[in-house]
Amino acid sequence: MSDAFLSAATTLLGQRGLSRDSEVMNPWLTDWRGRYSGRALALASPASTEEVAALVKLCAQHRVPIVPQGGNSGMSGGATPDESGDSLLLSLRRMDTIRHWDEDAQQVVCDAGVVLQTLHQAAARRGLRFPLTLGGKGSATIGGLISTNAGGTQVLRHGTMRAQVRGLEAVLPDGTILDTLAALKKDNRGFDLKQLLIGSEGTLGIVTGATLSLLPQIAARRVLFVGLPSVHQARRLLLLAQQREGAALEGFEIMPRDALDAVLAYEPAARDPLGEPHKWYALLELVADETQADSLQKRVTSLLETALEQGLVEDATIAASETQAEALWSLRDGISSAERARGPAVQHDISVPPEKMPAFIEEASAVLERQFAGTRAVAFGHLGDGNVHFHLRAPEGARGGEWEDADGKAISAAVHDLVTEWAGSISAEHGIGQMKRDELGRLADPATLSILRGVKQALDPQGIMNPGKLVPLASRAPAA
Amino acid sequence: MSDAFLSAATTLLGQRGLSRDSEVMNPWLTDWRGRYSGRALALASPASTEEVAALVKLCAQHRVPIVPQGGNSGMSGGATPDESGDSLLLSLRRMDTIRHWDEDAQQVVCDAGVVLQTLHQAAARRGLRFPLTLGGKGSATIGGLISTNAGGTQVLRHGTMRAQVRGLEAVLPDGTILDTLAALKKDNRGFDLKQLLIGSEGTLGIVTGATLSLLPQIAARRVLFVGLPSVHQARRLLLLAQQREGAALEGFEIMPRDALDAVLAYEPAARDPLGEPHKWYALLELVADETQADSLQKRVTSLLETALEQGLVEDATIAASETQAEALWSLRDGISSAERARGPAVQHDISVPPEKMPAFIEEASAVLERQFAGTRAVAFGHLGDGNVHFHLRAPEGARGGEWEDADGKAISAAVHDLVTEWAGSISAEHGIGQMKRDELGRLADPATLSILRGVKQALDPQGIMNPGKLVPLASRAPAA
Repeated sequence: MSDAFLSAATTLLGQRGLSRDSEVMNPWLTDWRGRYSGRALALASPASTEEVAALVKLCAQHRVPIVPQGGNSGMSGGATPDESGDSLLLSLRRMDTIRHWDEDAQQVVCDAGVVLQTLHQAAARRGLRFPLTLGGKGSATIGGLISTNAGGTQVLRHGTMRAQVRGLEAVLPDGTILDTLAALKKDNRGFDLKQLLIGSEGTLGIVTGATLSLLPQIAARRVLFVGLPSVHQARRLLLLAQQREGAALEGFEIMPRDALDAVLAYEPAARDPLGEPHKWYALLELVADETQADSLQKRVTSLLETALEQGLVEDATIAASETQAEALWSLRDGISSAERARGPAVQHDISVPPEKMPAFIEEASAVLERQFAGTRAVAFGHLGDGNVHFHLRAPEGARGGEWEDADGKAISAAVHDLVTEWAGSISAEHGIGQMKRDELGRLADPATLSILRGVKQALDPQGIMNPGKLVPLASRAPAA
Repeated sequence: MSDAFLSAATTLLGQRGLSRDSEVMNPWLTDWRGRYSGRALALASPASTEEVAALVKLCAQHRVPIVPQGGNSGMSGGATPDESGDSLLLSLRRMDTIRHWDEDAQQVVCDAGVVLQTLHQAAARRGLRFPLTLGGKGSATIGGLISTNAGGTQVLRHGTMRAQVRGLEAVLPDGTILDTLAALKKDNRGFDLKQLLIGSEGTLGIVTGATLSLLPQIAARRVLFVGLPSVHQARRLLLLAQQREGAALEGFEIMPRDALDAVLAYEPAARDPLGEPHKWYALLELVADETQADSLQKRVTSLLETALEQGLVEDATIAASETQAEALWSLRDGISSAERARGPAVQHDISVPPEKMPAFIEEASAVLERQFAGTRAVAFGHLGDGNVHFHLRAPEGARGGEWEDADGKAISAAVHDLVTEWAGSISAEHGIGQMKRDELGRLADPATLSILRGVKQALDPQGIMNPGKLVPLASRAPAA
């Protein structure tokens, strides 16, 4: 059976398009954080949408499961095959053409395999900008970003990947091509299938291309670093900044003193930008395109004066140069590494309604530190999105692997329980993949689970699209 | 069977909640344009989400089809039951409570039956604004607007209803309640079910409540009326205005001289705002909240100077008062009535990719006027959204009903064929309902149809949710 399939697939894709060589395949069979590993029948690298469609048809015929993969930089094991070795790993990386620029309409059509950083650079050469960005931009592909509805640091102003997608091209589980690349601003012809595919992690089809919206390039930016007495004041500062400069405010990140201490201890070049210590810090980035650049400095200064007058901030600094701006950002970007160096911790990617985040951080930290003696909660990140990285550090002296094995699962379950109580999400931006599928099954309400399963069954009745990911297994006793 | 159902439903909803009185029911059994009429088992008017849920469970048990209805101001017969009299008409109008304001987060939670104008007024009293608006605002309900993903005149800047919905509450076809009212900015827990329900016209479930985003109130506006040599110049002017004042530009409507003539002839008070006639006209509206109001006049004047310098516009006027602004808008808003008074015409609600709209208007007008001798094409409306009202006027002397019966269907089919060739939509904002279901079935690609049907079948296996609407019937010979 698999011989017949492999022979047909090789005929279809040619030598370059299909490999069973373990040296070629191995780098793509483990996720980049080394948490998940699997095996595969072969690595397919089709060169066009038509080849993807023909290949999926072949897979459907032979009932070969498909694991689509972009840059293999996902956080939840969504692009790693299982151990069975029955699946075909389908890489989109060879499809890396930027198909068409439309400067007037400020949009671009590109293949799914285009790397985010490549798109950034190509847009910049045209005086344009693709606003979504994240740590893995050097490997993350457009198709992967769409399939996981990726977030990042610019979501506050520009939304997640969903908000950037104007049109989509995808191959469905039966090998037909869904083409909505023509970007319509108004289209009420029934259920929005594009929205259904965005964030579906390859379980309903394979994204092969997209029409993405672009913005004018940034002409000026200002980065502020402020000290605050509490995380509630951070929320008030955010509201003031949004009210005054909502169109310019692109970043609003928070961190507690504790996290700043970790960075100052870990990064030799890091300096505390403020004279005295504060309980909380916020980093604000405001940007302007050419038409608004002249007034930016004045507006930022005025915003800060108001914040000081209203007693929202205790102290503040505005970066005087790009170098200083980068130094401020490196304090924020350095937290993950500094925290890792500090010792073992269990990490969570969670959201609650933004207005509740300050209260959640305080209550959840207290509850969890009490429940798990000796642990320490650290929350930092995207306050404006109601999304923080929520770490629980191991007690002093605990040994990483052992402690995580013993307590990690219980801690994560407790965090997810709390988040669910607060009407939040156990996956704000990293998706479900294989990592959180059981937790989603445990915590999602029955209506949601029943629709997830129903839609999956309707679109992929053979279950060949990225099996074992995202959609929780049905419980053994079916609902009446 | 229906007796048992009616008795149980009456027990559930009480006298006020269920009526079979024809005087009570009749106004809601014909759509407001008088194109579609039907009959119903009864009119149910539940008072809460819980009552809707219990009622839907009862309907599922007895297999009673449900036709959900908001303000009965739809354009495609989507809220009118069929002739059988087997369906329950389920009105959401009694659920008209604005549940909760959050001024800080700039959002409001309200029942599905809240009327749009009521929401506008209530928001204004709090210094806030709900930007979506349209002609039927005095009757259209939030639930209906969501179920049809309504558009209107502010889409250019703020998007359709989809873009205003942060959270949703809905009753699914089995009577379970899907509650995503807690508005998360980031949530990657699988397929976005909220997006699936928006625009599904009550075929997948009944919207019972929503969390909607709000904006600061408008503090100033400027309305411009410009004369243009061609519709292509209108597009260039739009691009200039978006580049310079994208955040302020809320309206960009176009009309040909021909349509202006119709309004001038029909409305006694109407005056041509420009001295000489021009081939095309555009109406621009730019607005500012309090923080931007001071500079608006200067920016609008500067924009107009640039447009004149670049030769984009032939002549222009800026309304000097709110009265003048309203007079300019009434020229645009008067087109539909003036065109109706002028004689019979077939109307279409279409979109193409915005950048193609000028070429489409020219080519489609020429093709159709040639194909249907004596007709005259008139296109006007939302150029910025790539969405125009596309009318074909009957030949001189044709008699309305007769001509429409004889030629209307062929003309609409020809328009829809052209739109489909141009990768556009046969329903830009009015939805499919019962009016365009056959056309959708004729013109949608097989992949789209198969997903529409599959999702419908998965969520509503009994087919009780608004049967006969939106989802085209499967062809008799099922696909292999």
